[in-house]
Amino acid sequence: MGRPVLALDIGGTKLAAGVVTPAGEVLSELSSATDPSSTPTDVTEALLDLGSRAAAAAGVGFGELEAVGISFGGPVDHARGVVITCHHLAGWEGVPLRDIVSQRTGLPTAMDNDANAAALGEVVFGAGRGCRDLIYITVSTGIGAGLVIGGKVHRGANSMAGELGHTHLVPYGPKCTCGRLGCLESVASGWAIVREAVDALDAGAASSLRSIPRRELSARHVMEMAQTDALAARIVGRAGECLGLGIARAVNLLNPEVVAIGGGISQAGEVLMAPVRRGFARYVMPELAQSMRLTTSELAPRWGLFGAAALAVREAL
Amino acid sequence: MGRPVLALDIGGTKLAAGVVTPAGEVLSELSSATDPSSTPTDVTEALLDLGSRAAAAAGVGFGELEAVGISFGGPVDHARGVVITCHHLAGWEGVPLRDIVSQRTGLPTAMDNDANAAALGEVVFGAGRGCRDLIYITVSTGIGAGLVIGGKVHRGANSMAGELGHTHLVPYGPKCTCGRLGCLESVASGWAIVREAVDALDAGAASSLRSIPRRELSARHVMEMAQTDALAARIVGRAGECLGLGIARAVNLLNPEVVAIGGGISQAGEVLMAPVRRGFARYVMPELAQSMRLTTSELAPRWGLFGAAALAVREAL
Repeated sequence: MGRPVLALDIGGTKLAAGVVTPAGEVLSELSSATDPSSTPTDVTEALLDLGSRAAAAAGVGFGELEAVGISFGGPVDHARGVVITCHHLAGWEGVPLRDIVSQRTGLPTAMDNDANAAALGEVVFGAGRGCRDLIYITVSTGIGAGLVIGGKVHRGANSMAGELGHTHLVPYGPKCTCGRLGCLESVASGWAIVREAVDALDAGAASSLRSIPRRELSARHVMEMAQTDALAARIVGRAGECLGLGIARAVNLLNPEVVAIGGGISQAGEVLMAPVRRGFARYVMPELAQSMRLTTSELAPRWGLFGAAALAVREAL
Repeated sequence: MGRPVLALDIGGTKLAAGVVTPAGEVLSELSSATDPSSTPTDVTEALLDLGSRAAAAAGVGFGELEAVGISFGGPVDHARGVVITCHHLAGWEGVPLRDIVSQRTGLPTAMDNDANAAALGEVVFGAGRGCRDLIYITVSTGIGAGLVIGGKVHRGANSMAGELGHTHLVPYGPKCTCGRLGCLESVASGWAIVREAVDALDAGAASSLRSIPRRELSARHVMEMAQTDALAARIVGRAGECLGLGIARAVNLLNPEVVAIGGGISQAGEVLMAPVRRGFARYVMPELAQSMRLTTSELAPRWGLFGAAALAVREAL
């Protein structure tokens, strides 16, 4: 502990780089938009350039940093440091990004998917500082989870632990992106909230959501209008209760100290969290609820940056 | 590794003690029925006596053993080595059984609840030998689970991890022993199978289960008749599918290498396991199913004995 680390974040729409101290102070932070037509080589060069400039902005060279962490927006083979696939950009299958970054920076480097990184971020810097068992749930366009168990990220047999989003929730529920029916993601994610709103509007429901062109309608619109619009409130309330039920199931299995909810949708505040707590309370074992905290992330919206920094601090050396 | 261990098992209807080598060879094994009116002191003395006689039967004294493990039929505060409550016998709250046994035998002693012990038993001696991530599910009168993650038992914030049985499965489902509706245990346990059969018979269903006096009807009768009786087959099929769904959810979250099913109901064979696999396949993520095994325990019916031996081998020292 002591020297700062370089945090690199490859997200859906942007790259970010920052220099962060082991205490969680952000010394510098830069970001740039990703071009959907970029090759992995383009993106890697852009990310390294962003990293260099972030280091310069913090007044340090790579040689004065301790390590690098990479939060990647898609599944990663953690043991090999290789990308399995990118959810947002083409051509990433099999790219050994961890070793490329390590060679170019001359620094020990750790890489993981964004949900695992953010889970470790909460334990090192956020809502779960110092705790050993934490579930992090990201609710944005999709739903993912990262598990910290016994102080370490739990990745499972083939780096796929945490698939809470594609866990069955509603019998005969809506079709999910994964092809099955009634997954948590199919009723509580950003895309599910948009689908519910579009379906209701198409069916003639009265709602101030009608003022938004149907094609531009986003989950953010629904969350924002949930304070004042009955349809939006009903959709967000149902999504929140389903999320609370999904969380209760995971808590009953894992008995964590903290559940932290991050991702864009989590920023809606009480309009989401009140139904989440309601659904959670209905299905969790009371003994387990008493000994834990259910909270929103403390790192919003810099889950990627702090997640990457946590990987560097805890796993790169 | 080398010297054998003493395994002690406090179950619902019997006490057992055995001497087991680190390779899993049972050198001796003795059991006795528990008297429901016994005090904890009576039971402890009976257990220690059984342990002494098991050691003698194996031709060793306590001084020639490496350690003691205790599998306890109820929740245990693992860190303190103290019983929280016994599911079958009165007066156990707060009994520091681990330290009592350690003092009386002069040996290092580990204790845990029966599901956690059996999960470790599968990893050390059974279906998950050498694996790091395993889910053990016990299906008998009730349903419980033990988790091994990263090679160690995962107990959670207050020793209650693994409450798969009281995890919500069926919306507006039957009332569970825990007071909530639709838990996995309320549709797939031994008591749920009996309730389904009694309800159907009371409603006039045709079934060869009518040949058994209603009050004597057990889950074993229903499992045995499921090969030839349509009602029994339907009840067991539904219980198995629900169990498969519950297992799929846990697998999606934890991505284990092995799921091992133990407990009395697991001994029904294909009549149960075929619907379990059907429900599992419908709800698990295919990538996760491919990299794991779903199997019955290899330690039946000596889950308690091998679980206790595994605790002694892995945790007592």
